[in-house]
Amino acid sequence: MPDICAFQYRYSSEEMRRLWSRENFLMKEILVEASIVRGLEEAGIAPAGCWERVIKCGRGITPQEVDEVENSLGHETAALAKVLESRCGPCGKYIHLGATSNDIIDTATALILKESLGIVKGKLRSVIEGLRRKASLYSDIVMVGRTHGQHAVPITLGFKLMNYAYELSRSYERLCSAEERVTRGKLAGAVGTMAAWGAAGLAVEDSALSNLGLAGHPITTQVAPRDGYAELIAVLAILAGQLDRFALEVRELSRPEIGEVETLHGRVGSSTMPHKRNPAVAERVSGIAKLLRGLAVTALENIPLMHERDLTNSSAERIMLPHTMLAIDQMLEDTVRLLEAFTPNREVMEKNLRMSRGGILSECFMVKAVLKGDMGRFKAHQKLSELTQKAVKEGKDLVELIKESGEFSFLNEEDLASCSDPAEYLGSYRELMERASRYVDDALRRC
Amino acid sequence: MPDICAFQYRYSSEEMRRLWSRENFLMKEILVEASIVRGLEEAGIAPAGCWERVIKCGRGITPQEVDEVENSLGHETAALAKVLESRCGPCGKYIHLGATSNDIIDTATALILKESLGIVKGKLRSVIEGLRRKASLYSDIVMVGRTHGQHAVPITLGFKLMNYAYELSRSYERLCSAEERVTRGKLAGAVGTMAAWGAAGLAVEDSALSNLGLAGHPITTQVAPRDGYAELIAVLAILAGQLDRFALEVRELSRPEIGEVETLHGRVGSSTMPHKRNPAVAERVSGIAKLLRGLAVTALENIPLMHERDLTNSSAERIMLPHTMLAIDQMLEDTVRLLEAFTPNREVMEKNLRMSRGGILSECFMVKAVLKGDMGRFKAHQKLSELTQKAVKEGKDLVELIKESGEFSFLNEEDLASCSDPAEYLGSYRELMERASRYVDDALRRC
Amino acid sequence: MPDICAFQYRYSSEEMRRLWSRENFLMKEILVEASIVRGLEEAGIAPAGCWERVIKCGRGITPQEVDEVENSLGHETAALAKVLESRCGPCGKYIHLGATSNDIIDTATALILKESLGIVKGKLRSVIEGLRRKASLYSDIVMVGRTHGQHAVPITLGFKLMNYAYELSRSYERLCSAEERVTRGKLAGAVGTMAAWGAAGLAVEDSALSNLGLAGHPITTQVAPRDGYAELIAVLAILAGQLDRFALEVRELSRPEIGEVETLHGRVGSSTMPHKRNPAVAERVSGIAKLLRGLAVTALENIPLMHERDLTNSSAERIMLPHTMLAIDQMLEDTVRLLEAFTPNREVMEKNLRMSRGGILSECFMVKAVLKGDMGRFKAHQKLSELTQKAVKEGKDLVELIKESGEFSFLNEEDLASCSDPAEYLGSYRELMERASRYVDDALRRC
Amino acid sequence: MPDICAFQYRYSSEEMRRLWSRENFLMKEILVEASIVRGLEEAGIAPAGCWERVIKCGRGITPQEVDEVENSLGHETAALAKVLESRCGPCGKYIHLGATSNDIIDTATALILKESLGIVKGKLRSVIEGLRRKASLYSDIVMVGRTHGQHAVPITLGFKLMNYAYELSRSYERLCSAEERVTRGKLAGAVGTMAAWGAAGLAVEDSALSNLGLAGHPITTQVAPRDGYAELIAVLAILAGQLDRFALEVRELSRPEIGEVETLHGRVGSSTMPHKRNPAVAERVSGIAKLLRGLAVTALENIPLMHERDLTNSSAERIMLPHTMLAIDQMLEDTVRLLEAFTPNREVMEKNLRMSRGGILSECFMVKAVLKGDMGRFKAHQKLSELTQKAVKEGKDLVELIKESGEFSFLNEEDLASCSDPAEYLGSYRELMERASRYVDDALRRC
Repeated sequence: MPDICAFQYRYSSEEMRRLWSRENFLMKEILVEASIVRGLEEAGIAPAGCWERVIKCGRGITPQEVDEVENSLGHETAALAKVLESRCGPCGKYIHLGATSNDIIDTATALILKESLGIVKGKLRSVIEGLRRKASLYSDIVMVGRTHGQHAVPITLGFKLMNYAYELSRSYERLCSAEERVTRGKLAGAVGTMAAWGAAGLAVEDSALSNLGLAGHPITTQVAPRDGYAELIAVLAILAGQLDRFALEVRELSRPEIGEVETLHGRVGSSTMPHKRNPAVAERVSGIAKLLRGLAVTALENIPLMHERDLTNSSAERIMLPHTMLAIDQMLEDTVRLLEAFTPNREVMEKNLRMSRGGILSECFMVKAVLKGDMGRFKAHQKLSELTQKAVKEGKDLVELIKESGEFSFLNEEDLASCSDPAEYLGSYRELMERASRYVDDALRRC
Repeated sequence: MPDICAFQYRYSSEEMRRLWSRENFLMKEILVEASIVRGLEEAGIAPAGCWERVIKCGRGITPQEVDEVENSLGHETAALAKVLESRCGPCGKYIHLGATSNDIIDTATALILKESLGIVKGKLRSVIEGLRRKASLYSDIVMVGRTHGQHAVPITLGFKLMNYAYELSRSYERLCSAEERVTRGKLAGAVGTMAAWGAAGLAVEDSALSNLGLAGHPITTQVAPRDGYAELIAVLAILAGQLDRFALEVRELSRPEIGEVETLHGRVGSSTMPHKRNPAVAERVSGIAKLLRGLAVTALENIPLMHERDLTNSSAERIMLPHTMLAIDQMLEDTVRLLEAFTPNREVMEKNLRMSRGGILSECFMVKAVLKGDMGRFKAHQKLSELTQKAVKEGKDLVELIKESGEFSFLNEEDLASCSDPAEYLGSYRELMERASRYVDDALRRC
Repeated sequence: MPDICAFQYRYSSEEMRRLWSRENFLMKEILVEASIVRGLEEAGIAPAGCWERVIKCGRGITPQEVDEVENSLGHETAALAKVLESRCGPCGKYIHLGATSNDIIDTATALILKESLGIVKGKLRSVIEGLRRKASLYSDIVMVGRTHGQHAVPITLGFKLMNYAYELSRSYERLCSAEERVTRGKLAGAVGTMAAWGAAGLAVEDSALSNLGLAGHPITTQVAPRDGYAELIAVLAILAGQLDRFALEVRELSRPEIGEVETLHGRVGSSTMPHKRNPAVAERVSGIAKLLRGLAVTALENIPLMHERDLTNSSAERIMLPHTMLAIDQMLEDTVRLLEAFTPNREVMEKNLRMSRGGILSECFMVKAVLKGDMGRFKAHQKLSELTQKAVKEGKDLVELIKESGEFSFLNEEDLASCSDPAEYLGSYRELMERASRYVDDALRRC
Repeated sequence: MPDICAFQYRYSSEEMRRLWSRENFLMKEILVEASIVRGLEEAGIAPAGCWERVIKCGRGITPQEVDEVENSLGHETAALAKVLESRCGPCGKYIHLGATSNDIIDTATALILKESLGIVKGKLRSVIEGLRRKASLYSDIVMVGRTHGQHAVPITLGFKLMNYAYELSRSYERLCSAEERVTRGKLAGAVGTMAAWGAAGLAVEDSALSNLGLAGHPITTQVAPRDGYAELIAVLAILAGQLDRFALEVRELSRPEIGEVETLHGRVGSSTMPHKRNPAVAERVSGIAKLLRGLAVTALENIPLMHERDLTNSSAERIMLPHTMLAIDQMLEDTVRLLEAFTPNREVMEKNLRMSRGGILSECFMVKAVLKGDMGRFKAHQKLSELTQKAVKEGKDLVELIKESGEFSFLNEEDLASCSDPAEYLGSYRELMERASRYVDDALRRC
């Protein structure tokens, strides 16, 4: 087959690709079929030894072999059942007996999702731990805090990074919850009643799911409820948005005029401009995030299936599930890379802190003025607002203009001095970082 | 102001509308401002008595009063702070001291979301309980189970309804988790460091949040992290999809040709066709669900804010948050109404069960054939497939055709009889319903 | 590479897959590089003969060859340029001279989109013509018109189908317009000024685009404006919605209880229920439509690129563009298949028309009553509403109940008779079908 | 009613709000009802004089009056018809005769959309013209062209702005096409056949639509096809993305470290930081764009209505249509404001051009090296890449490093000088701006 989809040849890790390959899906389907036979065995319906037989005779079946039978039958799972039956001798007729296609498909998907989520959680954990390590390393590097893209008041680089660690740990929590609801097997037959297994249904299900190491749904229609996939993809689209936010941070801080962070690798930035170095990895993270926001719509639309199910979920899911997992995998790997390369430039940070000639600490003066003078908060705000504009325009230090203005004479030298060092205007950043780190610890212990 | 938005005059309950009115938002903002003053009081920064004073002097402020000041200042929260300061005498200057606008906005929003979620959870609980009640009432009414819009195998109406109860209880769980992450106050100043409160930051925050009955975030930027709103709206869009699924069920089952359920009220269905009765309430549920899927996109896009925040979340949230809560409120109320009116028609259900002349139990024959004969599953499937088509085409009973065919001679009369009554082919539906009901019990105890 | 993406092995036609394969994209990129060399030749910058040389020495380059160089350079297009340079002797240094990567990428994409749109328009035309043919064939088959899933007033099957033809012809128009804006080459260098080509820029562009048979953009940044892709994908998502609507029509009309249309093929409908025949092709159309609605979000988010462009469009587009075209291709092919199999069941249609015992013509009686009597429209509506409910409940003909009621004595036998035949209550359906067909003709002539 | 929706009190212009008020919608509905009566009059069904009578007796009806009747009838349009009938004496019974609710709703909506689009196109035209004016004014101000947020090669501010003018003119074209498809009346009765008007249907429709100044659809179901609204909203979401792109440009260029553009107004930027000035208007544009991308999803989902229509479009549209138009209106007004305030800072632009010590012109050297030397493009790229990194790191001019390196000895002083002035490396920017301006002229003449 020609390569068309960039996830096959360009994005995502080998391990994630292998998980979502057709071959692996087929292997998992055969495992599910065998597990049902085991259930039938234990329930006394199928003869002893059949489930191990199915495992063996299922080996080596290729997607192409199933495709060929599907071409004449027009039904993928029926084709697999037929191929298996024809290979497994006297055990053959017990294969898929009483099961419906989505017993196989949904349960195989649960198995693959479980492994995928193991990978995703592992990589997310690496990102969070990487952020905490950097946060600790840079806990006291003072820099401009920015809102609206404009200078606000000082923060530290560590404080900034710890915010990301906290935010991502919330995604970790969400993944734990989603995993619990979505990695469940569904083995209940055509419409969920287990009718074809007579009185043995619960026993068959219990045995098969134990064999697979999956919990089940307490009740289902023909399929596992699709709110599960929607939750999972929404949760991953949220995570994608958070990684996008960090990527945006990197892209902005590494603009040459800002220059506070460097993540660029020594590679070609442009095919025509020799001088170019671009934050391409961060941009890729932001780019893939858009895909996940789109896929969330598809996942949400898949919930309202008709009666005991219609088939409109099927084609959408064949694309949506692997592409979502491959996309988030690439984003997480890229973020790990970003973090490794993330290098602050302290001198530039300091230079930028001085850029507003003290304006970045105007709030400090305002609070002082309110508490020591009788000026009122609004009036102090207004006057300082004028002076900070003047400071920038005339290239003078704010503290000088404050003195000159004569309106803040109730502030003495000590008062003024206490508002002149950004490193002194960081509030409780240390305690907050510790508090956040404890939260992260708890979150990472959730699952 | 002219009425433009249908949520103001047409959709949603009075209680939900009141919660999201400008007036209530302003009231909550004043309460937050006062609570911060309380924090400043307890930290020894503001004089005793100020916080109660602010509560009093904040009474009766109208949105219009704030608007007027905003017109000259160009900043909404600064305008509110100015209005409050001007009304509160010597306490005035402590108002908003060290706080940033989103301390007020995010915390007021958390308060309103908390009340809103109380309402939403209450109504969702009613829907779930209503479904369980009906499920229990109709637990043994046998009807056609349907997949792809076609007859599958029999289920009971109660079994069908219990599936919805289970699915919705998963939404209840998600709401509990989302609530924990989203109804948190944010009181940490301009960029989250609490710098303007000096060493007293944590104490101010603690006191103010206790007063408001809210937990806080361990760390924030200028704003509470926006993954919270995205999670909440995604979770509600998922819930909307589930209610949409139930509404679709009702719409389909009440088509005249199917006729198994009646929810129609004795009202005008068409302005021109006197005979029309339409499932308009169910259709409204499906309609509003589409809005929520759209708003989920907006909420996801609001996560990647720049640095310590940019303002691009603000306008989007002013629309997105109230509209989401008003939409889900209408959908839940409509679903309660649907459930109340939900009336099955047993005779039609029985008639429809007989429609396929026994084909609906073809699986039963297949399993019997596999277990008793030596036909193989695939071959049994194939033969029965032909006979079921013939049964419908020629208007004959499947069981007769099976006998005539001579291919299933290993099945005796008793075997054949055991596959002739839909009520006998319901598997473990009772146990599954009980299992689901226990799950629902657990879910509803979560919060 | 393992197959992961279902578009590679399951959905879409061979011709569309080939167009969007990596191999073909690379081939088109080489063609664009060669065309630029031609432009340089004609502008006197490159020596004569070079462009044909590049065509030749570009043959046989594989994606893997470029990948290998990319691995060391970290830039895909720079890698291609290097590979080409190394193969083309003295002409090598003119390759990519003055061009930026997106000159190559955007222009190659325009070429592929142009071919893709040729395919899409051709298949859409087949669908529209198929609908018109069926509309003409079934122009006078009377059937129940339905709103809200309930019986409204009669229509004909041809009238129904002609509505789809009209709606789809609007998509054809949109495709023509989108094609004009999107299949344009972009050859303007690093930021759109053509600076590297000195005074020869316009000539180079003109020559290269002529060679490729593409129009250009009058001005660009580094990239062609991304509103073009957003328009294209939105237009295709709209088309997908329309095909989804037709698929829903088929799915509903082929429910066994309604039974008016048959599109089912003689194949396996379920792996466990031998009697099942499912409208799986129609369901697949509805399923894939959900993907396209999601991709539209991604495409919209790709418009706001920063300054002369950022890279966040790139990864998203590598997935979004091929997947969109492959998805719509599958949907159109499926719809052609649906139309071929589409077979009405006249007897059932007639039976369903009688189901309401005349209620389906209640509007006819109401209009008669208004025009002949002095009852008022509202009162006539109200009385007929009661009688139609009674007709269904008591199993009596509406016309008899009208007579019995005594309230419509001003209507004589002839009046009543004129409201008793659905085939007589079809208004101007013929003229409307003709009007629509003329519109379709015009639309199909647009491009 | 309490104010909940920010579009009612905060966003959008008075004129747009008035158009989408309930009052105006009701007025337009009455106008449509009257126009149908005019059609009935001209067809000889209603007596002469009735249509003018309806205009008169329809005056002064309030939404509340209709609401009250709706409360008992459960149907909004039926309620309006009843209110009108009761006020219009002997003409009353002809009101709504043969019409279905969506004849009124869809046609009234078309009227309001037409006016709305007039406003939108007018404001978009202002934005485009404003951009062209500024582009012409600043056509030769040289500045850094940026890709990936990094310096690329020089452009002029006028060139940058003309790109936006071109892009937006494509939206203007799309609006013209969408308008043609969406501002069409729908007057064809219950399922589109005009059955209730007997043979007079086409005449009634023609007369009524002429009276309203609207074209019609050649054929419809019960409703106008919903691809029209989806197209309109997609087109506006694309426009929103373009305005978002311009707003992002402004936000980035006005970051203090970049400082090339000023749009800030002299108002309060923060409630707590006196020095803050924020690009709040631009941020609002980016914020509202997110809403429109979400609403596009809703609009797309509204296309697949069942059979001759289901009601699931109705509630979604009541929100989606006004909110979309109000949102785009606010965005356009904000963009006009941004453009008025848009002031470049030439000195900073020049300073930034020098920042890379000549690296911004590295492409110029590369092309020269390729054409004059025998170095090959790849090698020239590689060497210059190293030198540009060195230039920045060591704070030396690139041209000096080139000389020092000795590798470019084939370039003489003149060659080197020709790559030293950004103003000389602007390619065909003037011709491209003219070409774009002509395109814009053509586009604006489309409708």
